[in-house]
Amino acid sequence: MTTPTASVETLDWTIPQQEYDDRVARVRQILADRELDGLVLFHPIRMAYLSGFYHLSTERPMAIIVSATQPGLGALVPWLEQEHIQKAGGVSNIRVYPEYPTGGTKHPILHLVDLLAELGLTKPGTRLGFDSNGYLDINGYDGPTLAEVVGDDVTTIRARDIVDRLRQVKSPHELRLIEASALWGNLAHRLMHDRIALGRNPQEISHEASIEASRTMIAALGPSYAPLTAPLGATPAVVNFTAGANTSLPHGLGDAVGLRRGDVLVTYAGADVGGYQSELERTMLIGEPSDEFATWFARMLELQQAAFEALTVGRTLAEAETEVSALYQTLGVGDLQRHHSGHGIGLEGHESPFIDKGDETVIQEGMVFSVEPGLYVPGVAGFRHSDTVVVTSTGVKRLTIYPRDLDALTVRI
Amino acid sequence: MTTPTASVETLDWTIPQQEYDDRVARVRQILADRELDGLVLFHPIRMAYLSGFYHLSTERPMAIIVSATQPGLGALVPWLEQEHIQKAGGVSNIRVYPEYPTGGTKHPILHLVDLLAELGLTKPGTRLGFDSNGYLDINGYDGPTLAEVVGDDVTTIRARDIVDRLRQVKSPHELRLIEASALWGNLAHRLMHDRIALGRNPQEISHEASIEASRTMIAALGPSYAPLTAPLGATPAVVNFTAGANTSLPHGLGDAVGLRRGDVLVTYAGADVGGYQSELERTMLIGEPSDEFATWFARMLELQQAAFEALTVGRTLAEAETEVSALYQTLGVGDLQRHHSGHGIGLEGHESPFIDKGDETVIQEGMVFSVEPGLYVPGVAGFRHSDTVVVTSTGVKRLTIYPRDLDALTVRI
Repeated sequence: MTTPTASVETLDWTIPQQEYDDRVARVRQILADRELDGLVLFHPIRMAYLSGFYHLSTERPMAIIVSATQPGLGALVPWLEQEHIQKAGGVSNIRVYPEYPTGGTKHPILHLVDLLAELGLTKPGTRLGFDSNGYLDINGYDGPTLAEVVGDDVTTIRARDIVDRLRQVKSPHELRLIEASALWGNLAHRLMHDRIALGRNPQEISHEASIEASRTMIAALGPSYAPLTAPLGATPAVVNFTAGANTSLPHGLGDAVGLRRGDVLVTYAGADVGGYQSELERTMLIGEPSDEFATWFARMLELQQAAFEALTVGRTLAEAETEVSALYQTLGVGDLQRHHSGHGIGLEGHESPFIDKGDETVIQEGMVFSVEPGLYVPGVAGFRHSDTVVVTSTGVKRLTIYPRDLDALTVRI
Repeated sequence: MTTPTASVETLDWTIPQQEYDDRVARVRQILADRELDGLVLFHPIRMAYLSGFYHLSTERPMAIIVSATQPGLGALVPWLEQEHIQKAGGVSNIRVYPEYPTGGTKHPILHLVDLLAELGLTKPGTRLGFDSNGYLDINGYDGPTLAEVVGDDVTTIRARDIVDRLRQVKSPHELRLIEASALWGNLAHRLMHDRIALGRNPQEISHEASIEASRTMIAALGPSYAPLTAPLGATPAVVNFTAGANTSLPHGLGDAVGLRRGDVLVTYAGADVGGYQSELERTMLIGEPSDEFATWFARMLELQQAAFEALTVGRTLAEAETEVSALYQTLGVGDLQRHHSGHGIGLEGHESPFIDKGDETVIQEGMVFSVEPGLYVPGVAGFRHSDTVVVTSTGVKRLTIYPRDLDALTVRI
């Protein structure tokens, strides 16, 4: 008699292959519903979402193809990504081309047509979905559209929303990675906070804290950890901030001046864990707040609280945002609003859906949002906290646990 | 009698407004030649090239419009970029929209149509060029194409190459910024090199050196300096490297293991000066090279030297690359080539044209290239130096002055 072998796994920071397979199966179901024979994805994040293949986009086109009927995924890659794509578990048909613009053979998008033909997706009458009608506009790439190269016998149809809508509701595996991202972003923010000193340069403080948090994160998360979506040259955990008058603009650019008493700081922190992001932003102050400052700060907190409470399952994001906007009006600060209250977040720092009057997406359990209504007071400061929350059956859960109150965010030096 | 006022200027790290005006004038000339009435640019770098307006792309669309006949530039921006765009000297017609997807009014691309109408570019018979047929696929953005919203009375025509070709030949102002970029990249590489020690983590070394080089660069370049194209969270001067067996892949991903004797390093360094980039890459070794290693290294150097010499004014890039490829064959290493010999570089780290068998662009004085033929030897290492060169009337000038020989790049510890 033999006893069954016990499984011995190790904690890791990846999405299991089964989940990739499930995602592809769901895409196939939607293709069937829409009577599409296949889907071509050019965007690196949509490619990664279905295949686990993460890469830096350049002028060399890449694509993942889902056939509605055939198992596996098709992949177009340049020569220099050949070994990387072979590690992607769900990819069955790989077409490698030498180079862009041709490497001496033909344009990469014509190699894509060969791959489509191999998958039976160039037959007359084929209905082919795409996320973009051709490869990204990046690093000098130029080429014909997908519609132009597949010919008149194939109908091409915009279907960017198929994968993007799946991405809107996060799985338990994804939520775990986003939660970890928020934790390490929290550490990066604390290390930045503790380094604030008069005369110091914001960039230096930010870079030091980003490195220290990244070093700690890499050590803690162990050998399965690798940054997957952080831009080249950026630390995997990152914090930065703008200081001074710049903060009255929503996307202020940092300057190289040392910190001064009275500076308002608008911060950002996050981390890449298994490719997933979070967003933590705080409004901070060096020196004692004036009554006017405290009043604006309290209004911002009130708006953020209203936005948290507006995110309930079953209503639309447009309804939620309309409620927040109504509070801006009630507070008499409608003219100081400069953007909507937040956005989806996951594999991208910003992704759909949006907490916006024009977004009719119904709020669902497992959606993750930044919540960040801002007040931009000319000549005073920009007031904005951003927290990352997950929608639960009873409301939202805040994953970014950094203090939000003015006292904790005042640096008294 | 009055004496003329002497001009007193200060050295700075920006492109003067006159050069932006000249670029726009050249675009207008090309529009006239092609019988186009206007050009819509959605890509952030093309927008910056004509306007000096640099921004981070998100789901909120932005665009610059050039009319063939009207002076100034049109700009579409979201509410939160309103103050930034007003600083762009050449922009005369600004259309601000509240938010994406609508902010409660209408989709941003419909605001773009309003702006086009204001500029007279929606009249029946208008011929309208674009870089992409709609805004970028980024951060969950979705929307109709430009062709769909301008209606059947306007003909839309792909014309991405107009600005990209202008960008291929660098002005003296641009060359000065690229030269400065190469200098600070050189410093970052040296600071990294000096920090190499057994057991240390490549990421930590890289981040420390990147910060130190950035701090020094910011201090030296003075108050006019601001990073313009470095990604969010990245230092403006940056160095990194991969170590060990990973280097036999062209785009190896770094791991978190400490450095060991025998590790081969493939490095990268660069810096953002006034938005312009350079690229410095070296193959390095920890410990004494074997004879086999030295032989591969020498072949790589020979290939790079051939590529430098192949870049002469008046021939095509395809001719130059064919010459380099012939040397791969002569050396018997044709199967170890994994990419072409280089690419244009400027406001983007990779941009057109390409040193590729499929690029018929004629080499001109003032073009700037990375030169980086590589040898990827399975189980041994990846061998690649990348230098940034400018084409001169007599050959090329290397802007990346880091040592290239094996002795200087061997770390004996």
